[in-house]
Amino acid sequence: MEGEPTLRLRVFDLNCWAIRYLSKRRQERVRLIGDTLCREGFDLVLLQEVWSERDYSDLRVKLAGCYPFSHYFRSGVIGSGLCVFSRFPILDTLLYQYSLNGYPYMLQHGDWFCGKSVGVSMGVTAPLLSLSLQLHAEYCREKDAYLPHRLVQAWELAQFIRHTSKAADVVLLGGDLNMHPEDVGIRLLRGWTGLRDAFAEARHFEGCKNGCTLVPDNCFTDKSELLPFPLGIRIDYVLYKAISSFTVKCEELKTTTGPAPGTDIPFSDHEAVMATLHIQRQGQPVGATLGTADLALADVVTEARTEVSVGLRAAQRQRYSSGRMAVLALLLLLLQAAAALGILAGLGTEQPFPKLSFCLLAFLALGVLVLATGLHLFHTMEVKILRGTEDQMWMALRALQERP
Amino acid sequence: MEGEPTLRLRVFDLNCWAIRYLSKRRQERVRLIGDTLCREGFDLVLLQEVWSERDYSDLRVKLAGCYPFSHYFRSGVIGSGLCVFSRFPILDTLLYQYSLNGYPYMLQHGDWFCGKSVGVSMGVTAPLLSLSLQLHAEYCREKDAYLPHRLVQAWELAQFIRHTSKAADVVLLGGDLNMHPEDVGIRLLRGWTGLRDAFAEARHFEGCKNGCTLVPDNCFTDKSELLPFPLGIRIDYVLYKAISSFTVKCEELKTTTGPAPGTDIPFSDHEAVMATLHIQRQGQPVGATLGTADLALADVVTEARTEVSVGLRAAQRQRYSSGRMAVLALLLLLLQAAAALGILAGLGTEQPFPKLSFCLLAFLALGVLVLATGLHLFHTMEVKILRGTEDQMWMALRALQERP
Repeated sequence: MEGEPTLRLRVFDLNCWAIRYLSKRRQERVRLIGDTLCREGFDLVLLQEVWSERDYSDLRVKLAGCYPFSHYFRSGVIGSGLCVFSRFPILDTLLYQYSLNGYPYMLQHGDWFCGKSVGVSMGVTAPLLSLSLQLHAEYCREKDAYLPHRLVQAWELAQFIRHTSKAADVVLLGGDLNMHPEDVGIRLLRGWTGLRDAFAEARHFEGCKNGCTLVPDNCFTDKSELLPFPLGIRIDYVLYKAISSFTVKCEELKTTTGPAPGTDIPFSDHEAVMATLHIQRQGQPVGATLGTADLALADVVTEARTEVSVGLRAAQRQRYSSGRMAVLALLLLLLQAAAALGILAGLGTEQPFPKLSFCLLAFLALGVLVLATGLHLFHTMEVKILRGTEDQMWMALRALQERP
Repeated sequence: MEGEPTLRLRVFDLNCWAIRYLSKRRQERVRLIGDTLCREGFDLVLLQEVWSERDYSDLRVKLAGCYPFSHYFRSGVIGSGLCVFSRFPILDTLLYQYSLNGYPYMLQHGDWFCGKSVGVSMGVTAPLLSLSLQLHAEYCREKDAYLPHRLVQAWELAQFIRHTSKAADVVLLGGDLNMHPEDVGIRLLRGWTGLRDAFAEARHFEGCKNGCTLVPDNCFTDKSELLPFPLGIRIDYVLYKAISSFTVKCEELKTTTGPAPGTDIPFSDHEAVMATLHIQRQGQPVGATLGTADLALADVVTEARTEVSVGLRAAQRQRYSSGRMAVLALLLLLLQAAAALGILAGLGTEQPFPKLSFCLLAFLALGVLVLATGLHLFHTMEVKILRGTEDQMWMALRALQERP
């Protein structure tokens, strides 16, 4: 049905890097982002790392005219940092928090405190299910301790999309996935959901080379981190798929390059991704496109499952060592209690230790006991979730193999 | 289309109360449950509070013949306690953890450690989306401090069902909701999702009076808790709805009463709920049945939102007082550090405090600081989630009011 009208949807996605007190020239940049969004008049804006609710409120006030509908997703101690602005009504929202998101004691990485999640908003434009999200950051590519966590997140995200997307005609995902295009997590997400990469599908592209969104030319990026990648890396994506009797095509994809027009600074340390999609109703429902690549998909799931297993073994080791530490601290405490009781009962003829050292040691043992118990509980939870994901992936593999 | 074949689905739901070391005669009861399930041959079995993976494994081995498909949902420190056994293949599973689930420091209530969640399994029978779940327990009906948490859970559950159920033809929910039939959480869940209560809809009922599932006659229940309810209470439910071109009718509902056949003990402290459903394909899709009761639904959402606001204010107070406590502890520590430095620098002519008391006080302040900071972070998270839920409910109310 070529005669059906086409809906042209312009989407803006940006990791705003708006961390209070930490991000450079934050307020200026947020103001700049707001001005540009007002001027450009997109249909849908997906923002990440808007950590301060104050920044969101400011943006909402400024954008009320051109984007009358918006939502801020609250979660974690600091927040999810996710928000959505839309020219079309937002009918419903849902927040899904990943089960695993780093370690609370890795204070310098802070992911745990952010409650990283995926924010889903249902709009009336199609209906369109749009997801804004961010996955766990990669701090060291060579020795990536968070890979299993990021894979669990990619898997949960894929499962979540599979289960929620039936309610929509079009699924649109924009966000900072913290993964390179060829990484196993991206392949898993794309393969398991059937989502297509706007960069690969776009008829026309304009922007940073290879669609990179974290580039050395940006004055806010950490140059030393990008040394192995002189062109930069692509970690921010717009992904999409049509569910029922619709087709989606990416007409154009752009990234920002360099400073925002009329200023000396870029919007953020990430480049923004802007996609123009054409959505059209088809005569008959489009069949599932998944089946054709089942074998390749099975390989990806197997690869991801191997990485999750590696993470599981590491988590088991940490659970064991923190448990052992807790037991040792408890034993020391009991020993000290016994000694103290003995002295009180007059069994010992004299006090063998100076009181102060005795007391300090007891407090130290108590502190270690509390900390090690906390760690043990945390890693127990981690083991459960990693094992649960391993199980689910195994079930997925079986389902893939049993397909005719 | 009266000629379409009817699928008869027999469902078994039970809160098994199988807590290692704590539940009375646990192993005997789990064995009994397994024997009965084998003998009765249900189509779908939804179990809660199977806390030990060992019990699940034993059940799986025993039931392998009659229920070849099963899944155990892992989450939290202890686990979710949820599992599913099915005569039909389980195609896919998903675990959704509620954002709020009690307080980690309420050790005697333990809900926080269980990672209460809803386990979703997709089967091929229809396709059927079956959910097994448990909400936060009610420990004191008169002064129910957990009501806001349970309402957030009911709301998240309802939102989750609305977003995932489009992929299915029939949604079936079985579990211990820890709410009486007329409680606001149940009305919210039923109203917002359109789920129907098998007890209210059943053509034929057999079992405890009023369908109660926690009855004083059960030898494992706490009689003092049930004093205000001489007949018992109904907190375990089977709820269902048809999504697309299907109809579901509840032909029969049963609860267990008293000891299991041939023994002197019941299966659990809860009674089991057994439903026989008739699922039939219709000629044309059934329209949404939701619209008719929009006004009543708006009232329920408003009531729930009020309760969530009450919880929000309490959480804000707790966040404030724990924050204040942390600041005071920090001040005390700084003061002590200053005093210690002063003495070291030789400013004080003599040591004003005994060393031991000084040291003890410092450790006490440090302990209070760590605890109060932890509490502050936790309540900050709680405030965010309660406020997020309030927002979502407000959005729902607006959508309800704007409907023609």
